[in-house]
Amino acid sequence: MCGIYLDHQSAYPVDPRVSEKVFRYLSNEFGNPSALHSKGLHSREVIETARENVASLIKAEDPGTIVFTRSATEANNLAIRGTALRNVGKGKRVLASAIEHMSVLNPMKDLKKTGFELSLVPVDATGVVDLQALENLVTEDTVLTSIMYANNEIGTIEPIREISDTVHSKGMYLHVDGVAAEGKVPIDVQKDGIDLLTISSNDIYGPQGAAALYIKPGVRVQPVIFGGGQEKGLLPGTENLFSIAGMGEAALLAGAEMEQESERLKEIRDGIITEVAEIEEAYLTGHPKRRLPHHASFRFSRIEGESILLTMDAMFNTQVSTGSACSSRTLEPSHVLLAIGLRHEQAHGSMVMTLGRLNCMEQVPVIVKAVSQTVQRLRALSPL
Amino acid sequence: MCGIYLDHQSAYPVDPRVSEKVFRYLSNEFGNPSALHSKGLHSREVIETARENVASLIKAEDPGTIVFTRSATEANNLAIRGTALRNVGKGKRVLASAIEHMSVLNPMKDLKKTGFELSLVPVDATGVVDLQALENLVTEDTVLTSIMYANNEIGTIEPIREISDTVHSKGMYLHVDGVAAEGKVPIDVQKDGIDLLTISSNDIYGPQGAAALYIKPGVRVQPVIFGGGQEKGLLPGTENLFSIAGMGEAALLAGAEMEQESERLKEIRDGIITEVAEIEEAYLTGHPKRRLPHHASFRFSRIEGESILLTMDAMFNTQVSTGSACSSRTLEPSHVLLAIGLRHEQAHGSMVMTLGRLNCMEQVPVIVKAVSQTVQRLRALSPL
Repeated sequence: MCGIYLDHQSAYPVDPRVSEKVFRYLSNEFGNPSALHSKGLHSREVIETARENVASLIKAEDPGTIVFTRSATEANNLAIRGTALRNVGKGKRVLASAIEHMSVLNPMKDLKKTGFELSLVPVDATGVVDLQALENLVTEDTVLTSIMYANNEIGTIEPIREISDTVHSKGMYLHVDGVAAEGKVPIDVQKDGIDLLTISSNDIYGPQGAAALYIKPGVRVQPVIFGGGQEKGLLPGTENLFSIAGMGEAALLAGAEMEQESERLKEIRDGIITEVAEIEEAYLTGHPKRRLPHHASFRFSRIEGESILLTMDAMFNTQVSTGSACSSRTLEPSHVLLAIGLRHEQAHGSMVMTLGRLNCMEQVPVIVKAVSQTVQRLRALSPL
Repeated sequence: MCGIYLDHQSAYPVDPRVSEKVFRYLSNEFGNPSALHSKGLHSREVIETARENVASLIKAEDPGTIVFTRSATEANNLAIRGTALRNVGKGKRVLASAIEHMSVLNPMKDLKKTGFELSLVPVDATGVVDLQALENLVTEDTVLTSIMYANNEIGTIEPIREISDTVHSKGMYLHVDGVAAEGKVPIDVQKDGIDLLTISSNDIYGPQGAAALYIKPGVRVQPVIFGGGQEKGLLPGTENLFSIAGMGEAALLAGAEMEQESERLKEIRDGIITEVAEIEEAYLTGHPKRRLPHHASFRFSRIEGESILLTMDAMFNTQVSTGSACSSRTLEPSHVLLAIGLRHEQAHGSMVMTLGRLNCMEQVPVIVKAVSQTVQRLRALSPL
């Protein structure tokens, strides 16, 4: 039996059309893009084509706004540390929503060591950023505010345009972590009013090893690691040619196919949400309407998310997540679920399903049955 | 015509046996190594096997000493910033040889902003570190000294064991950039007395996107970018599964085949060096004996290295380098060539050939003829 993969967000399979391209630059057409000979120049062209495709996907002004990094974590660090430290003369205050990813929150927290003041912007019970609170928190000396386009654990899509207006009414730059949203909803950095945007390759079915930071023309950023002059000195080290080539191809495909694919996933997702919500004491987490088309997240009372994950995997060969894979090996409840107002014991019973190319409508009844039986089984065993 | 590739050091072709492995984890057996379900656990095993293979290659105490990074630049930054900042209580003095790579020198220079004092250890005319000068420079409050195993531009192999003894006689940790040497000469971190060692995947015919930092048990290092808990918190971000798998396979092959391959390359290299040295006013750079088996570097009077590179490429389809690809787009003379005592105009006439699997003995006369005709042609055109 093939199993049902519902953990796309933690790792996407690479699109076969993309891996063909990756393989080409891995084995045959290799060369250091900084080398001045013909192999180097060819590699340079491959990278610049990828840069154009990535810029197009997010409707950037021009390809020169895109800096390739090696991971979304690295892009978030460059956006946050690199921007805050470069603009320290303008103020030492930074903001982030309370539900940001660890690769945003942790560099923000580290800035406190160098005298920055960090405030977290609260969200409501569905995970939407509290615009009034944001307005109260943003000040003239707020150099950077970081709010994600959509949340990875609860699927809620943030009102980025309104957030941008609020941030820019008094503060300086808005950074947006677009990793959960990219390829699912159309991102338009210009219309959305974004100064810095993080996207990754794998989340649009590209290979690991490439990600990108969009930097709006005029925004000043400094590097966070040091070395050669690659990527205008902002991301030193020999470029990861085949991953960048793959990301470019993935961006092209995502631009062309996103709308139709998102419609398809939304139907499957709605099927799952409708049925799973019927289970006793099962609650949808995140916003019921403003949510990512591929995202279904729940909490179940009286059972542990980790037990759900393990049972679904072992008994039904179905892979789900309990939240962010990055913190899956800790016993702490998710900071996202606490931020939307859940108590510790409620936050522990979470299950996240993220759909993608490996899913189809025919799987819905099988998935629902697996969840239902898993929950029933675990509750029967539970001492609570 | 196939052309002759003599720029391995700037980009190696991936070994077909390795790319097969890469492709497997790219397309089929994917999964986030932090996920707790079966796909995650399988990916975790792949990474731990790779870690064992990398540890074996450098004779590390155990696999737990290996931290995977995404590039050698990132590993050098972690080694230098991460170690200096973590041990700042012990002193604020750091040392590096004058011929280190930019990804060592630039993080060292950046440390000066936080109050560190940096001294550069001189080398002799063949590029060997001056042990007496090192002994004079290293002090009780020297927290980190960084000396490369072998130099990428002139091929000189450093006396690492003696350097280690000198550093440890008074100072704290020795970091060694092993990128140019790995897979060419046997590195034994324990016998060599190394505290931190950087190696990369591509330099042993593995894919870009993976590198590693060896950290001797007991050496204290802090992260330089912040996010999730991956790699014991030292290198956050979802692991680059297929590149790490490829690096592990490449390490296994390098361990098994290095000795024989280095012997083979040494013969080709000696053939080239003997013949090219016959050209009028052609001089070998670096040490004549203590040099990497795959490395032949020269300088030619009255002509520019960049013109050599372009002519060799255009007229003879032969790819060479002028030094480090990372700084190839600047007009500055190489800091390495200046450090071995060359004047600016001498340093501008350099040519570096790095051999590898794509080369064989039969190419030697063709290479020598190409160099000879290129030099002749350029000198005829030269106004000097």
